Amino acid sequence: MPVFAREEYLQRLQETKRRMNAEGLDALVVIDHSNIFYLTGYDGHSAYVPQALVVIAQEEEPRLILREMDVPGDTAFIQPKHIHGYPEDYIAHPRAHPYDYFGDLFRQWGIAGKRLGVELDWLTPNTHQRLQQAVPNARFVDVGNLVTWQRLKKSPAELAYMSQAGVIADLAMQAAYDNIAVGVRECDVAAEIMAAQVRGTPEFGGDRPVTPAMPTGSPRSAAPHLSWTDARYENNSVTNIELGGFRKRYVAGLSRTLVLGKPEDKLTRLHEATRDAFEAVFANVRAGWTCEEVEALYRKTTRKHGFEKKSRVGYAMGIDWTEKTASLRSGDTTVLEPDMTFHLMAGMWYDDWGYVLSEAFRVTDRNIESFSKLSRELFVK
Amino acid sequence: MPVFAREEYLQRLQETKRRMNAEGLDALVVIDHSNIFYLTGYDGHSAYVPQALVVIAQEEEPRLILREMDVPGDTAFIQPKHIHGYPEDYIAHPRAHPYDYFGDLFRQWGIAGKRLGVELDWLTPNTHQRLQQAVPNARFVDVGNLVTWQRLKKSPAELAYMSQAGVIADLAMQAAYDNIAVGVRECDVAAEIMAAQVRGTPEFGGDRPVTPAMPTGSPRSAAPHLSWTDARYENNSVTNIELGGFRKRYVAGLSRTLVLGKPEDKLTRLHEATRDAFEAVFANVRAGWTCEEVEALYRKTTRKHGFEKKSRVGYAMGIDWTEKTASLRSGDTTVLEPDMTFHLMAGMWYDDWGYVLSEAFRVTDRNIESFSKLSRELFVK
Repeated sequence: MPVFAREEYLQRLQETKRRMNAEGLDALVVIDHSNIFYLTGYDGHSAYVPQALVVIAQEEEPRLILREMDVPGDTAFIQPKHIHGYPEDYIAHPRAHPYDYFGDLFRQWGIAGKRLGVELDWLTPNTHQRLQQAVPNARFVDVGNLVTWQRLKKSPAELAYMSQAGVIADLAMQAAYDNIAVGVRECDVAAEIMAAQVRGTPEFGGDRPVTPAMPTGSPRSAAPHLSWTDARYENNSVTNIELGGFRKRYVAGLSRTLVLGKPEDKLTRLHEATRDAFEAVFANVRAGWTCEEVEALYRKTTRKHGFEKKSRVGYAMGIDWTEKTASLRSGDTTVLEPDMTFHLMAGMWYDDWGYVLSEAFRVTDRNIESFSKLSRELFVK
Repeated sequence: MPVFAREEYLQRLQETKRRMNAEGLDALVVIDHSNIFYLTGYDGHSAYVPQALVVIAQEEEPRLILREMDVPGDTAFIQPKHIHGYPEDYIAHPRAHPYDYFGDLFRQWGIAGKRLGVELDWLTPNTHQRLQQAVPNARFVDVGNLVTWQRLKKSPAELAYMSQAGVIADLAMQAAYDNIAVGVRECDVAAEIMAAQVRGTPEFGGDRPVTPAMPTGSPRSAAPHLSWTDARYENNSVTNIELGGFRKRYVAGLSRTLVLGKPEDKLTRLHEATRDAFEAVFANVRAGWTCEEVEALYRKTTRKHGFEKKSRVGYAMGIDWTEKTASLRSGDTTVLEPDMTFHLMAGMWYDDWGYVLSEAFRVTDRNIESFSKLSRELFVK
């Protein structure tokens, strides 16, 4: 069963076709698996082999090309005869490539000589060449993030899943808080966080934590993207907990920092600067602001406290943790509209510790609303 | 702290340089993050932004280029002055690209006009062009999976981690067996499996389950790559449990099938055919066999039982779940050597259920050895 109603998928496709029409495209080859999920509901963990969704301007339902073994996955809304499996023999074949099979289908569908949009950033130079060879008369046009931009603004049904993801994120953060203690191994805390993320609530379960939580204690927390180890938390450990709640592929990010013992003065001041910046953003931002204005307000507030954040302060969030569209950074003039969703992410890293605070939010006409209900405190245990 | 001893990294690099020399390369740009980990120990979860390891033929230690915030991650064995951070401003910049910064470094290192190997399959057509523009006088050569092939044969230290991964996989499978029952939600079972994977044992913890276990009950188990849902297991559910034990980035895959109730006759016969094929492979294969000979023996055995497996029966496994090198399939004439590691993966999927059995193994001169100690039974509860 697909995640959304047929009607919603058809509306999304209509919008995609409108954008295709503006680019003069006869068909669009979608390869980004998050976009395939967005437009059809197909949710196989199968993007490590070639696959594509082909949106044909003149057809109501798109066509999905998968590896044969993945065809029975009944998660796309489209009719079975629009789901095409290529034979197993193409997998890891020394000469043949699944795109040869794609080419035959394109000819059958009458689009092999047409103007075809393609998500070029999801091809390699070699697969790009294979695709061109498979349909040598097609004119390929790179559409960049055409579909991804469409995902920036969420539907009520999407927002409902993101709200559930927010509830799960709060539960997972609580699990982190409850389990981190002097002498406990990082991996044991990570296990409890993961279990909370996947279990969800009795009403709705969690989805795959695509981006794992990384509750690493200092000094490893001086770098933001390291995984946990077998190390035990020590007195005065500063742990950065960046995690997500995942629900039906949608994610709500959430970060807090936890200190075992008395936080050092600089950390307390950094926390206060960040909390004030968050509160300024949540008190002022609403639809109509630009991304760079949000960043400027944030930066101005922390600067008053003597802290300068060097990296961007957030980015679009939804099906992907980091969506490749709007960034809360200087130079990004995207205008916030109601029902767009972002991750406001404040992280600063020093020589032997780091500090993080983050929340996912939704834009409305009046304000922005966090998907988390947790207080914005520095956790001290 | 890097995962392996400095001496081991230097040996790996020596082998890489030998292969570079055979291709006439002055330097090699490594982008596959598993290869960067293999050659240096760098283990940041940061490959979603541009980064690269540059192995220069004339230098003992390679050079790592990361986003500035990821530089403090003390996981690579190389000296700090060989780790270069590019400024945050390059991230999501509308015009500048981190590769511009890479180009400046290449000039500084005297390799901007040289013959440079590159892992082309890790670039897109656009990033490939950016890289060429950054060093217009370089001659780029696609090295394909040059480093990945080097990883096929494991060192004693790598095999020790894979053995630990095998222990963790057995524990996670036990968690699946213990928790699947009529009326239980799939997500609650997934939570217990994940926790077991991450917790590991009291002696060694588990690592990120990069490929999540997907304990989906029938009829969804008719497709191999679907995630769990909130659905509850029902009487006669057939659940395919494909999971990994993860330890210091190394994985040992393991799959079993569990039936709630009495298995239908066809499933029992398929299980017996598969188990016999596994036992034939484990009784006969040793160093000196080719990949396609393993597949032929497997296929011959199941065929005696009236079952024809259409997809390959395995692939190289190690740092990645599916390594892009040898496949146990017809047409692959790679000769097995001692200490190569594979995942023997038998999966067959029918209209409304599927069956899986898999184990990771190591090749020796006398036989092949499974990383799992579990019996090869069809779980019935």
